[in-house]
Amino acid sequence: MKLAVDAMGGDNAPKTIIEGVERARDKFPDIEFQLYGDEKKIRAEIKSETRLTVVPTTEEILDTEEPVRAVRRKKDASMVVAAQAVKAGKADAIFSAGSTGALLASGLFIIGRIKGIDRPGLMPTLPDFKNDGQFNILDIGANADTKPDNLYQYAVLGNYYAKNMRQIDNPRIALLNNGTEPEKGDLVHKAAYQLLAANPDLNFIGNIEARELLNGAADVVVTDGFTGNAALKSIEGTAMAVMRLLKKTILASGTRGKLGGLLLKPSLNTMRDAFDYSRYGGAVLLGLQAPVVKTHGTASPDAVYYTVSQIRDMVQNNVVTDVVDYFGKHQLEKHPENK
Amino acid sequence: MKLAVDAMGGDNAPKTIIEGVERARDKFPDIEFQLYGDEKKIRAEIKSETRLTVVPTTEEILDTEEPVRAVRRKKDASMVVAAQAVKAGKADAIFSAGSTGALLASGLFIIGRIKGIDRPGLMPTLPDFKNDGQFNILDIGANADTKPDNLYQYAVLGNYYAKNMRQIDNPRIALLNNGTEPEKGDLVHKAAYQLLAANPDLNFIGNIEARELLNGAADVVVTDGFTGNAALKSIEGTAMAVMRLLKKTILASGTRGKLGGLLLKPSLNTMRDAFDYSRYGGAVLLGLQAPVVKTHGTASPDAVYYTVSQIRDMVQNNVVTDVVDYFGKHQLEKHPENK
Repeated sequence: MKLAVDAMGGDNAPKTIIEGVERARDKFPDIEFQLYGDEKKIRAEIKSETRLTVVPTTEEILDTEEPVRAVRRKKDASMVVAAQAVKAGKADAIFSAGSTGALLASGLFIIGRIKGIDRPGLMPTLPDFKNDGQFNILDIGANADTKPDNLYQYAVLGNYYAKNMRQIDNPRIALLNNGTEPEKGDLVHKAAYQLLAANPDLNFIGNIEARELLNGAADVVVTDGFTGNAALKSIEGTAMAVMRLLKKTILASGTRGKLGGLLLKPSLNTMRDAFDYSRYGGAVLLGLQAPVVKTHGTASPDAVYYTVSQIRDMVQNNVVTDVVDYFGKHQLEKHPENK
Repeated sequence: MKLAVDAMGGDNAPKTIIEGVERARDKFPDIEFQLYGDEKKIRAEIKSETRLTVVPTTEEILDTEEPVRAVRRKKDASMVVAAQAVKAGKADAIFSAGSTGALLASGLFIIGRIKGIDRPGLMPTLPDFKNDGQFNILDIGANADTKPDNLYQYAVLGNYYAKNMRQIDNPRIALLNNGTEPEKGDLVHKAAYQLLAANPDLNFIGNIEARELLNGAADVVVTDGFTGNAALKSIEGTAMAVMRLLKKTILASGTRGKLGGLLLKPSLNTMRDAFDYSRYGGAVLLGLQAPVVKTHGTASPDAVYYTVSQIRDMVQNNVVTDVVDYFGKHQLEKHPENK
């Protein structure tokens, strides 16, 4: 297996990227890594060249750049050249901690969509605290304007991911909505409900509300990128706010509280770790012709390692090829709401 | 001031409603309360009849009923008759802990919209943990399908609420979006951004992401009801999940952790209270010709009391009349996206 790595993406690149990649290289003898980026900077970080190839590039795409234009203009950007390697069959998958928008553009314009998929969806794996499990949610922001067909396609994509990657026989698929009743939602979600309910290949369990996300109410949650983005960022913001408030309350509570806080410190660290979903890997851009996976710009070497392990599973477990097969056999009729 | 109270709405009605109302009655000598509902059940709870009038009704609207139909058919429902009293000028405002959908329908079809407002928005007051303050957000679910004009109108409504109720001279208005840059969002939010930026009467500070909601990034956050609903429920769900996880982690952490938890108990209770936003009052249906305020179905007598106090402030501070004046002078041209 060959993995194209955008070595220049992320806040601490290429250092943390290469540290994580070398850890993964030592663990997985079946992966060959291609490191795209500034040759000098990359070589300065490499400890051993075993199964690492450096592919020199001269440009980088910044988070502040308009993604589509940047991908079109910077022909020698590390991310762009890495995506071209995937397109040309020289690599099986691409990994980046760089700009999400630029990775989406590289995926769309260079690697290409799976036939039958109108838009890829961005999908993280998040914790289910109730059952010490996980769930997937897509789209969390690849597309702002979403049609019922997109939601339907996300469901099929998420279904194969949960089956092939998480070994769930019949994943429970739910639609994020503003109420649980079938008639809830705006026009797009009402129409999507009908499409999902009509597909016998999906174990569609109906609508769920955002309050139930972290309780493992579904294995795969389907949402439009605008709402999914708000839900994910609300979850992250609230978790941070609660932890900060807890710290503040402990510090303001006198000797008794401070002693309590000290005794509880290991528990609070365990809790903070429970929220760190980078241990499940990166966010996948599902619907493209190869695994395209994004990890946080602030990702640690551990997070990079987990993401490499996830990409390896995706290639071995045929997540992409199974979706290609499905849409080859099942062409969706355009829903009237898809104007 | 006369307040129409739907005494039958909520899980523990009329008991908790009347307990809260009597507390408010004893505190605010300028309010006369009209209690709409089952006369026998209401009288059984009343301790003193000072400034309380019971208006007997024979029907109730349940949370499980389709709201519009229920409001149209149940002519003698406590909520419907209370709304008719407001329409007829016999009461200045209405309060209910009953079905949100039915209260919206009663507000729309009986009390009526302010001229210039196409749809009312549902708006709670939520905590800003960073500055020990509050913020308002609307719409959190009155309307699933939202146009740019609706978002613009929510901004004007929220602006007057923050000015008149929270005494903020020049409230910071922000648009909830999937990024902070002006060009972010779907078509509806891009168009709304332009409308908001073009209005010199609003202190529009641009887009904010859901991650910043609890950090007091704005005084009034404008959002469509579908996204606002998901954001609010994500916040509530995450706060609950973190508190549960904290409890679980403490219980699993042996003697040391349990002792720590015991010492921290008062701090944890303070923290739980910080999340209880019922102390700011109920959620207001802004855009109707009188204050229409909803509190949680599980509201305590305290929450009922706070909500009455809030409604009193709304009437005294001319929240509704100022909006009526504004839209009387500023008619919005229809935006092309409002098809």
